[in-house]
Amino acid sequence: MVHHISDEAAANEPSVTTQAPAYDPSQAPLVYKVGYPPQKNLASEFTETLRETFFHDNPLRQYKDQSLCRKFMIGLEFLFPVFEWGRDYNFSKFKGDLIAGLTIASLCIPQDIGYSKLANLDPQYGLYSSFIPPLIYAAMGSSRDIAIGPVAVVSLLIGSLLQNEVDHVKNKEEYMRLAFTATFFAGITQAALGFLRLGFLIEFLSHAAIVGFMGGAAITIALQQLKYVLGISQFTRKTDIISVMESVWGSVHHGWNWQTIVIGISFLAFLLFAKYIGKKNKKLFWVPAIAPIISVILATFFVYITRADKQGVQIVRKIEKGINPSSVHKIYFTGPFLAKGFKIGLVCGIVGLTEAVAIGRTFAAMKDYQLDGNKEMVALGTMNIVGSMTSCYVATGSFSRSAVNFMAGCKTPVSNVVMSIVVLLTLLVITPLFKYTPNAILGSIIISAVIGLVDYEAAILIWKVDKLDFIACMGAFFGVVFASVEIGLLIAVSISFAKILLQVTRPRTALLGNLPGTTIYRNTSQYPEARLIPGVVIVRVDSAIYFSNSNYVRERILRWLTDGEDKTKAEGLPKINFLIVEMSPVIDIDTSGIHALEDLYKNLQKRDIQLILSNPGSIVIEKLHASKLTEHIGSSNIFLAVSDAVRFCTTKSMQEP
Amino acid sequence: MVHHISDEAAANEPSVTTQAPAYDPSQAPLVYKVGYPPQKNLASEFTETLRETFFHDNPLRQYKDQSLCRKFMIGLEFLFPVFEWGRDYNFSKFKGDLIAGLTIASLCIPQDIGYSKLANLDPQYGLYSSFIPPLIYAAMGSSRDIAIGPVAVVSLLIGSLLQNEVDHVKNKEEYMRLAFTATFFAGITQAALGFLRLGFLIEFLSHAAIVGFMGGAAITIALQQLKYVLGISQFTRKTDIISVMESVWGSVHHGWNWQTIVIGISFLAFLLFAKYIGKKNKKLFWVPAIAPIISVILATFFVYITRADKQGVQIVRKIEKGINPSSVHKIYFTGPFLAKGFKIGLVCGIVGLTEAVAIGRTFAAMKDYQLDGNKEMVALGTMNIVGSMTSCYVATGSFSRSAVNFMAGCKTPVSNVVMSIVVLLTLLVITPLFKYTPNAILGSIIISAVIGLVDYEAAILIWKVDKLDFIACMGAFFGVVFASVEIGLLIAVSISFAKILLQVTRPRTALLGNLPGTTIYRNTSQYPEARLIPGVVIVRVDSAIYFSNSNYVRERILRWLTDGEDKTKAEGLPKINFLIVEMSPVIDIDTSGIHALEDLYKNLQKRDIQLILSNPGSIVIEKLHASKLTEHIGSSNIFLAVSDAVRFCTTKSMQEP
Repeated sequence: MVHHISDEAAANEPSVTTQAPAYDPSQAPLVYKVGYPPQKNLASEFTETLRETFFHDNPLRQYKDQSLCRKFMIGLEFLFPVFEWGRDYNFSKFKGDLIAGLTIASLCIPQDIGYSKLANLDPQYGLYSSFIPPLIYAAMGSSRDIAIGPVAVVSLLIGSLLQNEVDHVKNKEEYMRLAFTATFFAGITQAALGFLRLGFLIEFLSHAAIVGFMGGAAITIALQQLKYVLGISQFTRKTDIISVMESVWGSVHHGWNWQTIVIGISFLAFLLFAKYIGKKNKKLFWVPAIAPIISVILATFFVYITRADKQGVQIVRKIEKGINPSSVHKIYFTGPFLAKGFKIGLVCGIVGLTEAVAIGRTFAAMKDYQLDGNKEMVALGTMNIVGSMTSCYVATGSFSRSAVNFMAGCKTPVSNVVMSIVVLLTLLVITPLFKYTPNAILGSIIISAVIGLVDYEAAILIWKVDKLDFIACMGAFFGVVFASVEIGLLIAVSISFAKILLQVTRPRTALLGNLPGTTIYRNTSQYPEARLIPGVVIVRVDSAIYFSNSNYVRERILRWLTDGEDKTKAEGLPKINFLIVEMSPVIDIDTSGIHALEDLYKNLQKRDIQLILSNPGSIVIEKLHASKLTEHIGSSNIFLAVSDAVRFCTTKSMQEP
Repeated sequence: MVHHISDEAAANEPSVTTQAPAYDPSQAPLVYKVGYPPQKNLASEFTETLRETFFHDNPLRQYKDQSLCRKFMIGLEFLFPVFEWGRDYNFSKFKGDLIAGLTIASLCIPQDIGYSKLANLDPQYGLYSSFIPPLIYAAMGSSRDIAIGPVAVVSLLIGSLLQNEVDHVKNKEEYMRLAFTATFFAGITQAALGFLRLGFLIEFLSHAAIVGFMGGAAITIALQQLKYVLGISQFTRKTDIISVMESVWGSVHHGWNWQTIVIGISFLAFLLFAKYIGKKNKKLFWVPAIAPIISVILATFFVYITRADKQGVQIVRKIEKGINPSSVHKIYFTGPFLAKGFKIGLVCGIVGLTEAVAIGRTFAAMKDYQLDGNKEMVALGTMNIVGSMTSCYVATGSFSRSAVNFMAGCKTPVSNVVMSIVVLLTLLVITPLFKYTPNAILGSIIISAVIGLVDYEAAILIWKVDKLDFIACMGAFFGVVFASVEIGLLIAVSISFAKILLQVTRPRTALLGNLPGTTIYRNTSQYPEARLIPGVVIVRVDSAIYFSNSNYVRERILRWLTDGEDKTKAEGLPKINFLIVEMSPVIDIDTSGIHALEDLYKNLQKRDIQLILSNPGSIVIEKLHASKLTEHIGSSNIFLAVSDAVRFCTTKSMQEP
């Protein structure tokens, strides 16, 4: 681009600079009065606000002028997108889905077994959760790329939250029941958020906070796996790095098992190498995808023939055969565990939601289709509610598997169906074969899976872009690593909120100066060459003026003025007679803001300095008018461009002796 | 003002309209490249943020290059402004203060006795609280007009909060002790907020919410007085209008006392008439000011001679003589009451603070002197801490008395000293005379005093200016009137926060069109005459893009685009090839915002639509650059004015077949 004119360059007649002796309106081009938006009555205003808040995506637009039966069909398609994409489903699409489905199945089976350990549950529950939920999602979900199932972070979270309430060894039954209760309420939470169109609430978890939280969780999870990879029998229940390291070094002399270590380390190396290949050559994405199942098979076979389990190599030992038993009767609908289950469910539900929605959005953007966040939530919620009644624990969209699914060329959620069928077969036929699978291999698989969650590049970018975001990110990260998952999450949320509050309390203000030879006015700290106009102070307020910042804005403007006056005194310049407030960025103002302006006006009157407003937006001018403030200030002192205002001031000060 | 050019009118060459055949840079006036603000290192950036957050009023500026002893003096004057204004204190000033002091004294004595009843305390405690605290404030406070003492709302608040914990009849001693404890912690809270320069936290109580809360409290207080004015013996402990009305009508046949009613009503009429006179003629401000004490004297005398108390007219009966006894030993520093006292103190402290600071600011603006909010808080806090040790309960700045103080022509806080001396004399000498003062008169005085707090004009203004503010206002009002003071306060705070969150989640966006014959681009809904440019969609985002709204902004922009495409399809216009995002009002952007823009960009690429940014602010462009997004979009697609961008688009689409 060639030339740069700022927004203050309004009424830019190159010939005229701000020192123009007289204020000559004739030089103005075509005149448009500042337009007041058409008066809305209260009802329409109210409904509009509501719509923008809850229905900004205008979900009903497609129902407009349609026949009743058509409306019903659309409604059905809305609830069950399967009817939408199902209609033009064909073999070529199925091929893609089949391949993708098989790939993610081979990836998910070993992961599920490992993740269920993170949640302190028996291995089969992980597989259960990869059987029913994907089927539900395939019918209700609108994302084509997401792969459903248990995920590391949520498993760790629910595991540690449940462990705080019930011990999973002493009273296993209660622990199980509480797990299902939590899953149930996680589903309820998700569905409710979606149904009430409160999806935007999850926006309050900032991207930075999530990056930090995920990274921290990944580290924690990896550390947990040392238990299996090193074959340590006595391991801490805590998840913070200190106590984990203590119990690792504490058992260094006795309790480490070299056979286990050999298996663990060697296969971990193999998995990481596979990952590396996949990264190097995108065509070989399937290598890291099937590496886990291969290593499981190899390791299991190896242990079986060498009977290494006799040498103390811990193995899965026992894994239920058969499909999900019902667990409706196990959910607590009464008693003290109801509240606990609800609390845990709420947290896990929201975290799961955040992950799933983030993934969904990413891939939707890649393939360019819209994703209705609220609809997604209803789908995920229903899926977990049904899951909780069929012995599943909280399932959601998995980063690693969704990526594989995408790369394997999935076309529709059918890939999830394929996966769940494979899982079904596994449950029916081959689970017993996992008896000799060493835990070490599962540990290595999880480590290689979660490493991807430590997104240091994102962290670096955050550092570059926004330091405050970086603090939030690190806060969440260290919170999880050094304290616990809950603490980390708490820190993430509270920093996110603190950031919002800080934003609205302390907006930016800038002292404007004139760029020599133009009618452009710019921030003097940004443009050192910008000259101040003698006798005039020009301040720009870079934010809406609300109750939360009105007093700050007022005081800050006055401080700019005082600084200016000190300067003029020091340099013996003419007294300051005008304060121009450039309001272009002031999007909105509320009653407190108007009071602040009023105080400012009174305050200036005392010092006989003229307050001048420049370019207030339509909503602002409307409110100023409603509050009669325009009359006080005098509409002749409200300009639509700084240059006009300055010309007005200079002219006036020349007229006065 | 004569001519109106919008901020989009950058590069405004009247001759050239957007349909200009070719993009001719030569027409550009003097060129300034968009300036990157000088790179700050992290430390300075951090300190700057800190300073703006906590020291935006730059309190240390006056210490710059001063001698050490001078510095000490300034520090002393900072803590005790008395040294500042005391130096040039003279007789003429004293005259003003004397008159003002006597006036507010005559007003405060009857009020204090009444207010202490609101707090369920014996009458003398109200007087105590008007003796010590004003002296402290006179030395430390920086407002010249504020009148210190117990106030209606805080008295009601502390009364009802304490009553929730301890019954003031059954265990009076405990109640007293808890009251002093609460007062102590109210002081601590206030001082701490000021000392830690967290004064801005009270900004989060929006003006609207306060108006509603005050109004509601006033109504509640007035209703409470019916007990005295109607001479009802059996009266509810609740404060909500329903139960109050029940106990009023319940006792209509028996329990109303006609003599009391006569006294109450007649003097209430007298007081309101006096108020009316004061309003009519500002010179007669003293009439409503001394009316209360006069009516007290008359009523007391009347009861004394007629011995109306024998006819069941309730009288003050007993009021301690002598000055404040120490109450240090009565404060709970341990035990279960510590926490309760702290909680109550926190709430009362903050409410008191809000009231005092609001008053202080109002009068400071009128007389044009700056008020350091944090300094005020330290003063008020110290005053209450000392007060809690000298049998005072929470004192703060009173609306009614401060106004009188101001109108009576006070010059310095000396008026407070005068008042407290008068109160001292009252305590020492004439308290016994109050024995026969009927409660009815106190009731009437309070009613006439609090009526002023129902600021219906403010409410109307709020309604006019901002409907959401109005909801907050009404919520607080009805919360107090129908539920309780605490509930009302809770509603006020939560609505205030909800408003902030809504603001940051759902910013405005606008579809821009060209004003025929100019290069001005304006909101089409505001300017119906604005024409859309064929093949181009121009959207303005009216807010900073943060994590809390980034996704909404992205989706909203896409929706504008889709609407545009539907329209073009319907009208058979040329396909849309360009999306221009006008970013002038986008003050800032964070990582989530950048991701949203990136997604938007990818999304548009898929539809092969060119994303073009117009006039991003310096901070924004800096961050876009840091995140390499500028490279993706191509810096040749970033313009500093919509008109340039449009000309670029039109030219391009002409070149392409």
